Amino acid sequence: MLRSAVVAVGDELLLGDVVNGNAAELGRLLAAVGAPVVSSSAARDDVDEVVRALRRALDDADVVVVTGGLGPTVDDLTRDALAAVAGVPLDRDAELEQALRARYAEHGFDAPDAALRQADVPRGAQVLDNPVGSAPGLRLEVDRRLLIALPGPPHEMRAVLGDAVLADLAARSGSVLVTRTLRCAGVGESEVAALVDGALRLPTDVRLAYLAGGGTVQVRLSTAAATRAAADDVLAPWLARAEQALGRHVFGRDDDTLPGVVVARLRSAGATVAVAESMTAGLLGAALTDPPGSSAVFRGGLQVYATDLKASLAGVPAGVLERHGAVSAETAIALAHGVRERLASTWGVGLTGVAGPDSQEGQPPGTLHVAVEGPAGPVVRSVRLPGDRPRVRLLAVAVALDLLRRQLG
Amino acid sequence: MLRSAVVAVGDELLLGDVVNGNAAELGRLLAAVGAPVVSSSAARDDVDEVVRALRRALDDADVVVVTGGLGPTVDDLTRDALAAVAGVPLDRDAELEQALRARYAEHGFDAPDAALRQADVPRGAQVLDNPVGSAPGLRLEVDRRLLIALPGPPHEMRAVLGDAVLADLAARSGSVLVTRTLRCAGVGESEVAALVDGALRLPTDVRLAYLAGGGTVQVRLSTAAATRAAADDVLAPWLARAEQALGRHVFGRDDDTLPGVVVARLRSAGATVAVAESMTAGLLGAALTDPPGSSAVFRGGLQVYATDLKASLAGVPAGVLERHGAVSAETAIALAHGVRERLASTWGVGLTGVAGPDSQEGQPPGTLHVAVEGPAGPVVRSVRLPGDRPRVRLLAVAVALDLLRRQLG
Repeated sequence: MLRSAVVAVGDELLLGDVVNGNAAELGRLLAAVGAPVVSSSAARDDVDEVVRALRRALDDADVVVVTGGLGPTVDDLTRDALAAVAGVPLDRDAELEQALRARYAEHGFDAPDAALRQADVPRGAQVLDNPVGSAPGLRLEVDRRLLIALPGPPHEMRAVLGDAVLADLAARSGSVLVTRTLRCAGVGESEVAALVDGALRLPTDVRLAYLAGGGTVQVRLSTAAATRAAADDVLAPWLARAEQALGRHVFGRDDDTLPGVVVARLRSAGATVAVAESMTAGLLGAALTDPPGSSAVFRGGLQVYATDLKASLAGVPAGVLERHGAVSAETAIALAHGVRERLASTWGVGLTGVAGPDSQEGQPPGTLHVAVEGPAGPVVRSVRLPGDRPRVRLLAVAVALDLLRRQLG
Repeated sequence: MLRSAVVAVGDELLLGDVVNGNAAELGRLLAAVGAPVVSSSAARDDVDEVVRALRRALDDADVVVVTGGLGPTVDDLTRDALAAVAGVPLDRDAELEQALRARYAEHGFDAPDAALRQADVPRGAQVLDNPVGSAPGLRLEVDRRLLIALPGPPHEMRAVLGDAVLADLAARSGSVLVTRTLRCAGVGESEVAALVDGALRLPTDVRLAYLAGGGTVQVRLSTAAATRAAADDVLAPWLARAEQALGRHVFGRDDDTLPGVVVARLRSAGATVAVAESMTAGLLGAALTDPPGSSAVFRGGLQVYATDLKASLAGVPAGVLERHGAVSAETAIALAHGVRERLASTWGVGLTGVAGPDSQEGQPPGTLHVAVEGPAGPVVRSVRLPGDRPRVRLLAVAVALDLLRRQLG
């Protein structure tokens, strides 16, 4: 297996004006060709700083991919840093220069001197074509390590990296790193870890990691092997054992999403769903229509934010609102019932709670009541969610989707 | 001015399963207190690798902020790395241990041994409270440099970092970098840049940057000075000039959001709004209820995803649906009218379109019709949005909010 390192160049990354999505994209692409990223860094638009970052990356890895700093402006200094690290001069490439002049002429400009620096190539480097922009990529060997420079804009980065470069890396590595994921909902990270840790005694070549977020927990098993199939064979029994230990908490594998799984199950059952949302005001409907093709199962919904709409739109009996309040399990059940009946769906989901920051009807932020009504009648779940207003609303959607999933069998 | 370095810990960052948003957030926060980030890196879940990354960061900067690897599972190794770098042992903190046991007991579990490691503290370190999770942060001095460890989940990271830590850094740095932002909607980045570039001749100590995303464009002006007030004085005239050049395209400044501005304007006018959403299925209602206090202005809405619901719930005349189709300006106008009438609001918004990936009624993905009806009658906007399904839905919400904003005056 090859080890890769990624260096991203640009002040905007360090000041936080731009999130470093290139590093994540390269992480996925390089792992898939058996050259997983072992270290990643970002450097300012300063030659010395870029040189320093490149030297560290060359210490860490066999392949170093640097992104950004190849453009036409004076703060684009990656070419100079590459030449310094390789100990070679920059040569102006006549063919590239001509192409650049033609490109600018096409837009009615003379190419500025700074822009022509995009035709400078560290001696001995190979030029990587940029089909979607002006700055070409570069590929050079330094101390038997491979250095690949790519433009910073994500679509140019991906276009210049190209399938040929990735295929070359795959051939050199002779190995792939495969990660398989079990996705759980309706359960905390600690409980997931306790269940899995108790069931698995992993060999040293299989790595286990947990990742929690947005109301779901991922169990990630990874291993390296010569081929994807060989790695899959190593992981399969452990994956099965973990899945058995986790039981109904598992809603999917790998790229599955909670809305995607719910929509697929409804679809295969020929069933439909409608929602009545108070606190989330549409987030649950939005989640259920996130997967393409959801129009086959999602009928629609009622955003019953104001209390009077819970009665007039969703048919919650006035007595329920008076006796139990708008934020109650009884109101959630009545919302699920009302929306299922009025929108003529197989399943109805009712959701009410307190997003915060203020309490409501004496109930604290994080209070959530979700009800699901199906052919066999209603179920309801009442929980207290952690976090601030946006997080409470996000987690509420996950709880509602998970409750619906568990009813779908 | 202080120099900061950021180290993010986690295999998931290097494999690209998670984008390193923490680094960007810390970049903004640290620059704002005069401790701009000069280097940033990510390290695997491996003690030696984290130690190596921390040592490099301590070489680069006065303040090192490390995120991730503080959680309850065996792959959380940041505490061990901190102790190794500082050359001190880990001590179990009795008070933290008791709090952890209580936290688990509250959920009906015994705390697993691995989870109790969250009570381990490098000798001499200060514990930073985590009000929203189980893993506390840590703060220690190493070779007169400051090391701050924060949990990886973004909301925990921000909560543990806390205003007190930031204020301490600001006091140490003696200088601040101030960025002021104008926020525009309903206009493209190129047009914004042309308007601003034509109006401003900036001095060299003021930086100008554009940042587009989610249907809005930011114009960012920044400068460094000894105090916030001095920096504000430098930026104020340029900000005013840019705002004048951009006119009605500007919806807010700095931390303003499009939903926040719309809700505030409705509120000060004593007006209310209701929405009828097809393609977005609830995203617009969710956006309008994102700001706290939105219950004073948001009545509710109708998620009329299935075509028959556009007629039965929102009262779109059958003739309009037949003659113009469900995806049409006429249907958007009828949705706005119907929801305004049925939900008894000052303003009604109707939204219909094609999110993709497939065409609908012969209309391509990205098609959007939004109508707003107020006391003076309806306005409608029809546009073709770029991007894939999630992006089209996100941009549709921004177009709808912007159309409503422009009617509110």
